[in-house]
Amino acid sequence: MSEVETLACGILERKLRPLAKGITLIESKNPEHNQAANQLLEKILPHTGNSVRIGISGVPGVGKSTFIEAFGKHLTSQGHRVAVLAVDPTSQITGGSILGDKTRMEELARDENAFIRPSPAGATLGGVARKTRETMLLCEAAGYDVILIETVGVGQSEITVASMVDFFMLLQLANAGDELQGIKKGVMEIADAIIINKAEGSNRLRAEVAAQQYVNALHILRPKSPNWQVPVKLCSAMYKEGISEIWEMVCDYRQKLTNSGEFDEKRRKQSVDWFWTLLMDDLKDMFLSNRNVESMFESVREAVEKGVLPPAAASKRLLELFKRH
Amino acid sequence: MSEVETLACGILERKLRPLAKGITLIESKNPEHNQAANQLLEKILPHTGNSVRIGISGVPGVGKSTFIEAFGKHLTSQGHRVAVLAVDPTSQITGGSILGDKTRMEELARDENAFIRPSPAGATLGGVARKTRETMLLCEAAGYDVILIETVGVGQSEITVASMVDFFMLLQLANAGDELQGIKKGVMEIADAIIINKAEGSNRLRAEVAAQQYVNALHILRPKSPNWQVPVKLCSAMYKEGISEIWEMVCDYRQKLTNSGEFDEKRRKQSVDWFWTLLMDDLKDMFLSNRNVESMFESVREAVEKGVLPPAAASKRLLELFKRH
Repeated sequence: MSEVETLACGILERKLRPLAKGITLIESKNPEHNQAANQLLEKILPHTGNSVRIGISGVPGVGKSTFIEAFGKHLTSQGHRVAVLAVDPTSQITGGSILGDKTRMEELARDENAFIRPSPAGATLGGVARKTRETMLLCEAAGYDVILIETVGVGQSEITVASMVDFFMLLQLANAGDELQGIKKGVMEIADAIIINKAEGSNRLRAEVAAQQYVNALHILRPKSPNWQVPVKLCSAMYKEGISEIWEMVCDYRQKLTNSGEFDEKRRKQSVDWFWTLLMDDLKDMFLSNRNVESMFESVREAVEKGVLPPAAASKRLLELFKRH
Repeated sequence: MSEVETLACGILERKLRPLAKGITLIESKNPEHNQAANQLLEKILPHTGNSVRIGISGVPGVGKSTFIEAFGKHLTSQGHRVAVLAVDPTSQITGGSILGDKTRMEELARDENAFIRPSPAGATLGGVARKTRETMLLCEAAGYDVILIETVGVGQSEITVASMVDFFMLLQLANAGDELQGIKKGVMEIADAIIINKAEGSNRLRAEVAAQQYVNALHILRPKSPNWQVPVKLCSAMYKEGISEIWEMVCDYRQKLTNSGEFDEKRRKQSVDWFWTLLMDDLKDMFLSNRNVESMFESVREAVEKGVLPPAAASKRLLELFKRH
């Protein structure tokens, strides 16, 4: 057996060391490792896809770690095996990852049916997303049947996570006053559910008022699916209230969309979109690293920015340089 | 003088025939014409940019033609020269263009200070957008100082138009009941103003109620600019009420964003974004028309869709084929 085959077998046997080693290959910047990672992915691909992939987002302070801990523990208590991944393109800039510290989810980290992996390092969201996607596949091959992908409420990261999961949930708080102002552009539109956390004690009433406001706000958006009306749910991750209902909601979603064929259709579309994204990224890298293009690119771009060269002519000029090579 | 130089001079002298001929070159599918069009664009480029570029969108029935006629006539009466272009990727499919028939804007069509051009034919939105953008530059070189770009409220066309204009306005109606449901995903977020048309007679009160609902809905969106709060305006294009106020609003916007430097910054960003879009499109065309790639592409894409080939491996495989050529 080749090294990659040994690794693949180990992962399929649900062993942790081969899984960790496979993820390290995926995250490596060494081109040889990347080749091995691609071979590994090809081998395990037939054994992937058997999980529910759930994206979880929310701004810092909303209680994501506490929620994931409560949600994850509920799932393992029901016999599920849970992998927690993260997409955090800021981890390199800020020097810390949202999941760098397993003490954030102490109980779940000790649970043998849970696997927690911090956000891969990577300067660009695209790089982080690629590694997280591939890690998700390895986790599925290793028998994790619920994948939770956490992301920070920053920039494009939510849209990226939504494009790789089956179900995307947005955690919110019931702030006093104008809570709806806090919603980032476009995030409401990609959410499959809105969860108002910390709906406990004296906060409960405010959470109920906020829920109604979200329901109203959701009315100005077209439903993503004819078979799913985005619910607004209350929970208290701290007191483990409303957690089982959230899992029931996800199961209900999967059932409805599987029945209508949308579930598989969405995954196929995500795969093809992802393939196009990778292909265009790779093509772009090849183009920009061409010596002729590289030497002229910046001056051409500046000429466009200054308005002295039309974009169409600029593009033609660079392509000619590329072809000549 | 070369033929292209003659054409450029004619356009700069504000002659209609050279302008029409230049647009025909831009819209042509003949590669030689495209080369000439690129040369022409390069020549006239220093004389472009001196207009206010306004995008106008709204679903069929909202009264776009009547609005553009009233707005355009108001502008020419103030000494402006107005060009009306359109982005309608459905025109080829439905067999008719939203601007195919100049009788839709009879008065404006007869106005010597107005120039109306129907949507170019083109199967893809990208193709239509490219031609419209370039036509806009020719119109600016020909001394039109207000460019109105109309689009249908279908698919991505509004986002495309918003990416080429300074100011994007969304026309709406005050329907009874749930008018906010009619807003398409994402369109509120790109609008610089919302105009409620047909705010006349017995409709006036309903329009005022709707306006307040839009103001409330806008609150859940972050402002696009720190210097601009998206206004909701009422007008009656039919009775020419509220039209001059809309032009004043556009002027106010230009003034504020020019003072803060955002106006020019937005245009520079649009140019560079457009350059990247063209470059990636051209690169993609070159790649997909490569003989090796062409012969294998569909089978590779299908393997990805069926889940038997990982996207990353698929991309690598196609790039190898391309390089080998």
